[in-house]
Amino acid sequence: MSISRHSSTAKYTRLDEHQHHDDEDDESIHSDGTVDELIQSDDPEHPANLIPELCRGFYTLGWVTGTGGGISLKSGNLVYLAPSGVQKERILPEHIFVLPYPQPAVVKAHTERTFLRKPKQEGLKESACTPLFWNAYELRNAGACIHTHSQHAVMATLLWKGEVFEISHQEMIKGIRIGGTGKTLSYLDTLVVPIIENTPHEEDLTESMSEMMQKYPDAAGILVRRHGLYVWGPTWQSAKTQAECLDYLFEIGVKIKLMGLPVCPAKEGGL
Amino acid sequence: MSISRHSSTAKYTRLDEHQHHDDEDDESIHSDGTVDELIQSDDPEHPANLIPELCRGFYTLGWVTGTGGGISLKSGNLVYLAPSGVQKERILPEHIFVLPYPQPAVVKAHTERTFLRKPKQEGLKESACTPLFWNAYELRNAGACIHTHSQHAVMATLLWKGEVFEISHQEMIKGIRIGGTGKTLSYLDTLVVPIIENTPHEEDLTESMSEMMQKYPDAAGILVRRHGLYVWGPTWQSAKTQAECLDYLFEIGVKIKLMGLPVCPAKEGGL
Amino acid sequence: MSISRHSSTAKYTRLDEHQHHDDEDDESIHSDGTVDELIQSDDPEHPANLIPELCRGFYTLGWVTGTGGGISLKSGNLVYLAPSGVQKERILPEHIFVLPYPQPAVVKAHTERTFLRKPKQEGLKESACTPLFWNAYELRNAGACIHTHSQHAVMATLLWKGEVFEISHQEMIKGIRIGGTGKTLSYLDTLVVPIIENTPHEEDLTESMSEMMQKYPDAAGILVRRHGLYVWGPTWQSAKTQAECLDYLFEIGVKIKLMGLPVCPAKEGGL
Amino acid sequence: MSISRHSSTAKYTRLDEHQHHDDEDDESIHSDGTVDELIQSDDPEHPANLIPELCRGFYTLGWVTGTGGGISLKSGNLVYLAPSGVQKERILPEHIFVLPYPQPAVVKAHTERTFLRKPKQEGLKESACTPLFWNAYELRNAGACIHTHSQHAVMATLLWKGEVFEISHQEMIKGIRIGGTGKTLSYLDTLVVPIIENTPHEEDLTESMSEMMQKYPDAAGILVRRHGLYVWGPTWQSAKTQAECLDYLFEIGVKIKLMGLPVCPAKEGGL
Repeated sequence: MSISRHSSTAKYTRLDEHQHHDDEDDESIHSDGTVDELIQSDDPEHPANLIPELCRGFYTLGWVTGTGGGISLKSGNLVYLAPSGVQKERILPEHIFVLPYPQPAVVKAHTERTFLRKPKQEGLKESACTPLFWNAYELRNAGACIHTHSQHAVMATLLWKGEVFEISHQEMIKGIRIGGTGKTLSYLDTLVVPIIENTPHEEDLTESMSEMMQKYPDAAGILVRRHGLYVWGPTWQSAKTQAECLDYLFEIGVKIKLMGLPVCPAKEGGL
Repeated sequence: MSISRHSSTAKYTRLDEHQHHDDEDDESIHSDGTVDELIQSDDPEHPANLIPELCRGFYTLGWVTGTGGGISLKSGNLVYLAPSGVQKERILPEHIFVLPYPQPAVVKAHTERTFLRKPKQEGLKESACTPLFWNAYELRNAGACIHTHSQHAVMATLLWKGEVFEISHQEMIKGIRIGGTGKTLSYLDTLVVPIIENTPHEEDLTESMSEMMQKYPDAAGILVRRHGLYVWGPTWQSAKTQAECLDYLFEIGVKIKLMGLPVCPAKEGGL
Repeated sequence: MSISRHSSTAKYTRLDEHQHHDDEDDESIHSDGTVDELIQSDDPEHPANLIPELCRGFYTLGWVTGTGGGISLKSGNLVYLAPSGVQKERILPEHIFVLPYPQPAVVKAHTERTFLRKPKQEGLKESACTPLFWNAYELRNAGACIHTHSQHAVMATLLWKGEVFEISHQEMIKGIRIGGTGKTLSYLDTLVVPIIENTPHEEDLTESMSEMMQKYPDAAGILVRRHGLYVWGPTWQSAKTQAECLDYLFEIGVKIKLMGLPVCPAKEGGL
Repeated sequence: MSISRHSSTAKYTRLDEHQHHDDEDDESIHSDGTVDELIQSDDPEHPANLIPELCRGFYTLGWVTGTGGGISLKSGNLVYLAPSGVQKERILPEHIFVLPYPQPAVVKAHTERTFLRKPKQEGLKESACTPLFWNAYELRNAGACIHTHSQHAVMATLLWKGEVFEISHQEMIKGIRIGGTGKTLSYLDTLVVPIIENTPHEEDLTESMSEMMQKYPDAAGILVRRHGLYVWGPTWQSAKTQAECLDYLFEIGVKIKLMGLPVCPAKEGGL
């Protein structure tokens, strides 16, 4: 993918409060203050380069097909977001939104979300998942949050009709962190992923997701029935590997259940 | 993929009516009038570059295996088509047919289809899907039309034995547009995709597809029993993402039905 | 993949009978007579370049995993073969065997197979499929023959316990040629693929495959129970696309049968 | 993938016993004694280049998702290992550990594992699979050992509830070597893969794996229930192709069993 390097001429006066960074290594804001430098970097691990690359990988996994799903990264007091309703496997760095953090997750009446950078391409709107990513940043101090429409996640929410998906005695459980950002689970732990009911508008999931994250402080992710998964981690690496572990566990859990074998053998019998 | 840039020496006198373009940005016809300039461009989003690229992607999705399926794009009053019966993942820009639009979808006795450009390679014939693509252009004013042989589509037509495939309460429904080119559906809407019966010759589907599109004006695509899917959109991006959403919904609908769970839970019970 | 271009210094005196080519376009034998020129070419469609490229594609389809399966091409009176027991997705042009054609399919006592070129790398032996590829060249005048270990093919041979796999009323049937090299089937035709029983040694399949090809002159391929598929065509393109169509039909046939629906609806009822 | 070539300035005094190599071709230790030369090479088949490349391939096969699984190579008296808990598809040569061989598989109290090279990146620890790879090196004189978390392997351990997975009458059995490093099996042989019970800590599998390898000297790999597979070979090529054959056989064995057909037809009836 070609990453545009030509310097932006548009200037942007940033609020002072956003010029102080916690993260000393963050090179995304240069002294000349041009906005597009927020998303221009030769570093393949810069959030504006990582989001497109990771989304291409997620597309091949079937997680972000049909413009669904995505990823947001937080670096210092900057949050990076993809646009809503675009092909996730074709995002370019110049499509990335950059927002100051903290700010309210949900926009109140007569106010607007604050941005440090918006893509110049007309018609692009920030991802509808924004307030849900914010839940991960606010309630878990996450550094990255991934949303998938994986069919394994959706199938799990159809076969587990209650408030949680549960699985035990699978090696891949060891790849999941307590609360998504703490210590990793042990093989002896039962993985519990809460499920919330879907709503017509993505942002209307914000409150029920937040409530479920507080009710299940050890949960590393939240399933949305008939919709997909939200999962986070302290870093993008951790969010991604936990997403892979959860997706694996949803897939194998569905298979085990459909075969009529116990998914939680200590509880159901079968060990 | 290497895209041939060497200039064609063959000249083509185009009809005047085709020299006026609606789309000001269209750079495919240059003033010197050489025909191959219709398919030569450095722009990766030029239809003659996009069709090969998209077909390679569709091949990895299992949509155009064994020469089946394909895509047609319309830009201004030009329609771009791949040849019939060739490996869709190996198409090159020089294999693309360019046709003036409008012209009759079905060729009448003693007449021929009109072309602005035919590939020089002998034996290539325009896709047998041409009149079906035309249905999307004429009845829905589409800018792109995709045809897949996806097994998920075919399986859906075997398990839904009536005139329509129906599914509700799936997030991915929100990726589908009313009629394929209108506003997107809501999560509360039931997706209805009409199914027509297959015929020995692809072009013989033209009339039944057209009738079904008029009977179901909100349909974003037409399933062909034991065959595949036709889906369209105002742009190639929209046609592609709707094709992905429909394919996802056929796949998960088949899985849900085979598990014995309700695919339309409001209607069948199970919400 | 890098294709070695450095000229070989080894000389090879070819029999006169092999210096005459039917195919005027064949550039693989240059006048200086160096053997490696048989497999050195800048043309990506040269057999020694195509075999590695196609095998990489077949690997991603699951057809040649674990060194199984492969492809042989015939160009004029030359046959190109991959070695036995090597990773098919990592073959290089210099690994290719080149054989004169015609010669006996099966090596008789006290004689040896004749080669125009053997790879220099020690321990490489020509594919054990060689006499089976020869069946396609001799009995069907094929230009290419593909062997897969696709699980779809193997599953079909387990669920169809008799002498043939049969399927009808699937669009993909139209991609198959009568006898593998003749006219394409119609949608109204029933596809019949004979099944032979596996043997401990691959070459011991030669006779039963030959007999079945003669018993079913319209068959485009031969299934080997608990093993895989042989399929051929007049050209590599046709062999590959027929392999894709057959694999699709085995896969969907197995799915339909496992769902309890009719695979040949005219015969079984269900249309 | 870019492979770092810049010379390391860190010096490392290696024990004399590790400076003698069995393998004359090994170019990984240069005379200047810089440690990073152990993992710097232009040869794509150098272990430090191969491990990253192979892991990327394993990731696309679903074998090493979520940081699980991996591969270790032995060349002469050097063992190459990836770090624990990292994304296997993103390993770089500079992340590779190099260990002298032989040394004890399990570290005794008050001692440490001996390394010739550790990655400079902080926080990286050698793979927790290290003593299990050692089993393959010590008990089978293997040159490579692969660990997968493939769902096909895990499903096989759930459906085969006893001490072994067994399958017969499948062509792919011929790709497996007796004991993993001996002669290949015949089509008439029954493949037997022992299954050990999982433990909370990977290293605690060392003894039961070792015992099972001695109890089943012909076994080419060891399944770990609810976890995955260990498989080895004399070379990386053999370990990889045997891993592919086993994975294929687990997958098709599970499918056959779920269909209610015999997986070992001579024993169960059904031939």
